[in-house]
Amino acid sequence: MNIQNKLNFSRRIRRTPFTSSVEKHGVTGFSVVNHTLLPKSFQNSIDEDYLHLQKYAQIWDVGCQRQVEIKGKHALELIELMTPRSISELKPGKCLYIPLTDENGGIINDPILIKISDDHYYLSVADSDVLLWARGLAIGFSLNVRIREPDVWPLAVQGPKATHVLAKIFGDRIYSIKKFNFDYFLLDGSSQLIAKTGYSRIGGFEIYLSRPELGKHLWETILEAGRSENIRPGSPNIIDRVEAGLLSYGNEMTVENTPLECNMDKFLDINKEVDYIGKKVLLRQIKYGVKRRIRGAIYEGPELPTISTPLQVFDTDKRTIVGSLTSGAFSPHFKSNIGLGMIGYGCWDNNREIFVKISDQEFRKGLIKDLPLIQ
Amino acid sequence: MNIQNKLNFSRRIRRTPFTSSVEKHGVTGFSVVNHTLLPKSFQNSIDEDYLHLQKYAQIWDVGCQRQVEIKGKHALELIELMTPRSISELKPGKCLYIPLTDENGGIINDPILIKISDDHYYLSVADSDVLLWARGLAIGFSLNVRIREPDVWPLAVQGPKATHVLAKIFGDRIYSIKKFNFDYFLLDGSSQLIAKTGYSRIGGFEIYLSRPELGKHLWETILEAGRSENIRPGSPNIIDRVEAGLLSYGNEMTVENTPLECNMDKFLDINKEVDYIGKKVLLRQIKYGVKRRIRGAIYEGPELPTISTPLQVFDTDKRTIVGSLTSGAFSPHFKSNIGLGMIGYGCWDNNREIFVKISDQEFRKGLIKDLPLIQ
Repeated sequence: MNIQNKLNFSRRIRRTPFTSSVEKHGVTGFSVVNHTLLPKSFQNSIDEDYLHLQKYAQIWDVGCQRQVEIKGKHALELIELMTPRSISELKPGKCLYIPLTDENGGIINDPILIKISDDHYYLSVADSDVLLWARGLAIGFSLNVRIREPDVWPLAVQGPKATHVLAKIFGDRIYSIKKFNFDYFLLDGSSQLIAKTGYSRIGGFEIYLSRPELGKHLWETILEAGRSENIRPGSPNIIDRVEAGLLSYGNEMTVENTPLECNMDKFLDINKEVDYIGKKVLLRQIKYGVKRRIRGAIYEGPELPTISTPLQVFDTDKRTIVGSLTSGAFSPHFKSNIGLGMIGYGCWDNNREIFVKISDQEFRKGLIKDLPLIQ
Repeated sequence: MNIQNKLNFSRRIRRTPFTSSVEKHGVTGFSVVNHTLLPKSFQNSIDEDYLHLQKYAQIWDVGCQRQVEIKGKHALELIELMTPRSISELKPGKCLYIPLTDENGGIINDPILIKISDDHYYLSVADSDVLLWARGLAIGFSLNVRIREPDVWPLAVQGPKATHVLAKIFGDRIYSIKKFNFDYFLLDGSSQLIAKTGYSRIGGFEIYLSRPELGKHLWETILEAGRSENIRPGSPNIIDRVEAGLLSYGNEMTVENTPLECNMDKFLDINKEVDYIGKKVLLRQIKYGVKRRIRGAIYEGPELPTISTPLQVFDTDKRTIVGSLTSGAFSPHFKSNIGLGMIGYGCWDNNREIFVKISDQEFRKGLIKDLPLIQ
């Protein structure tokens, strides 16, 4: 066992209402997201967890998906300013994936927006302090909003059996929630927001627990209800995520990348009327095109370890760098290594041949692939 | 060995130019600060590292202290807006500890400000995305500044032999740098900023390496030059830090705390003319006083493990909670357990008796102490 990478705990790396439960259930590794622990592995291998996730249900402590609550007269105005996606038509009860951009069009974060009411929103954020960005903007623009991190902690139930498990606890109304919608359900007399969202290909639900003292109870209730469905603790799975083309902020893209480079132009409203931050740069990129785009890759075995530092991607001459893979793993589905990463202009077409550099001595032949790798 | 807390690596948790060097030299544990690896332990115990740091020199990879570079016509104006400390008299070549506050007076971060020239500054930040805060404010207030994270990576050399070691490499001019000053020195033909600063009681230097490709070379050069001074790799040491009363953002204080609660009123200019963010709240706190303040504590043995989750502090009745300890360790100097934390009004006087709750069964008698515990 590698003893080079123990994580030193401190108050600064926050525990969630579910951390003691994941410890009890045999967590073996963590990551840190938004100054908060994210359990990343349990007793099983990534492969076993992947196969389990495709068939059953898993419970994930994703409390690290911190919420930025924006409330008040100018809430909509502030959020419209922060994203190239139009949200003016969004109804309460709906969720929307909205990349946030800076004045260079660079991605600040790619949260899920949750519309509670016309003047009340959550941003469920990836790994950067959107709280500070939003508050800085609000102060500078003198907007009438209250922005804070509420004491709300998402817990995900994912996989094909997730709906059935939650229906046992919260009733059949769970079945009627559509994808990217949410509703409220009773937990021990308290109303809890449950959204049909999640960071897996098959999907599931995220419970936005607003009573952290119920964390252990909620965790045990779900495990108990899911016992007959073979539920178990898990975490966002790298194989599943790469197959589904689900991007990870800080891995596939950073503030150096624009939403166009991340294939988000399809669902954005870059030309929207609001003069949002980054609009000029993004309009120019639409006109002149981008130099790189996120693509998938499938490349030869044998099985390689999960990518933890980017692998360079070369042209067929094995000399010209055409991009890099920033996340990857071995896929049991493709029986090949798979990855995600930025690939340069001219080289990003589906089935383009490339070589992935594993070491100075070793190149693996592969193909560029459109995303998602599996629909 | 505890296998519950392996840290899972990914590109999102950035490596520094020194990470491969610390791996080569036997790092055993990391923390994560500013989305970047911070080595926290090597082959030795915290006690051994502490004793070594008091006598010799250590080299620390503190690349996680990311820089926020603010440059341009309104640079000074923006920074004045962000802090209750007056910086108008600060000269180029100087460093200054400046807490940043939000509109509630809460601490956003507590960076070291580095004044390069009248319109060019670095903020060397603790663990929060000050980059986003500063950029949000600059956009909102339409300030003419360029704000970015430069490719600059601090490497610390700390301890009583640090000056001597660096003089061997950079020449005797090192001896003339005063505390909280910096100057430029040649490294392989490139000019590097070296400041007399650092996160230890005895102090030392921080080299702001602006050529990351020289990381390995710089690391090895320092180790080689320091061999006769018994230099070794280390990291910010919890015993030394608590004895010195050095606060850690995210541990002792968060955005919920004001600079007054952190004893910073002594050196701040809360009444300064500039209408900085948080001024109203802080002026009110000066008038009406605060309800809690950071204090030290010394409490009975036997030796306890390093504090990783806060310990409650009780009044002598063992019933009334009067505060909590957020960092702590066993001090060889005091031959007692020591800690830092927020203590409530009426209970924070020097030598006030308290009890620290270790578990439901165990309370340890102790005394509140003014900071620093050791000058």
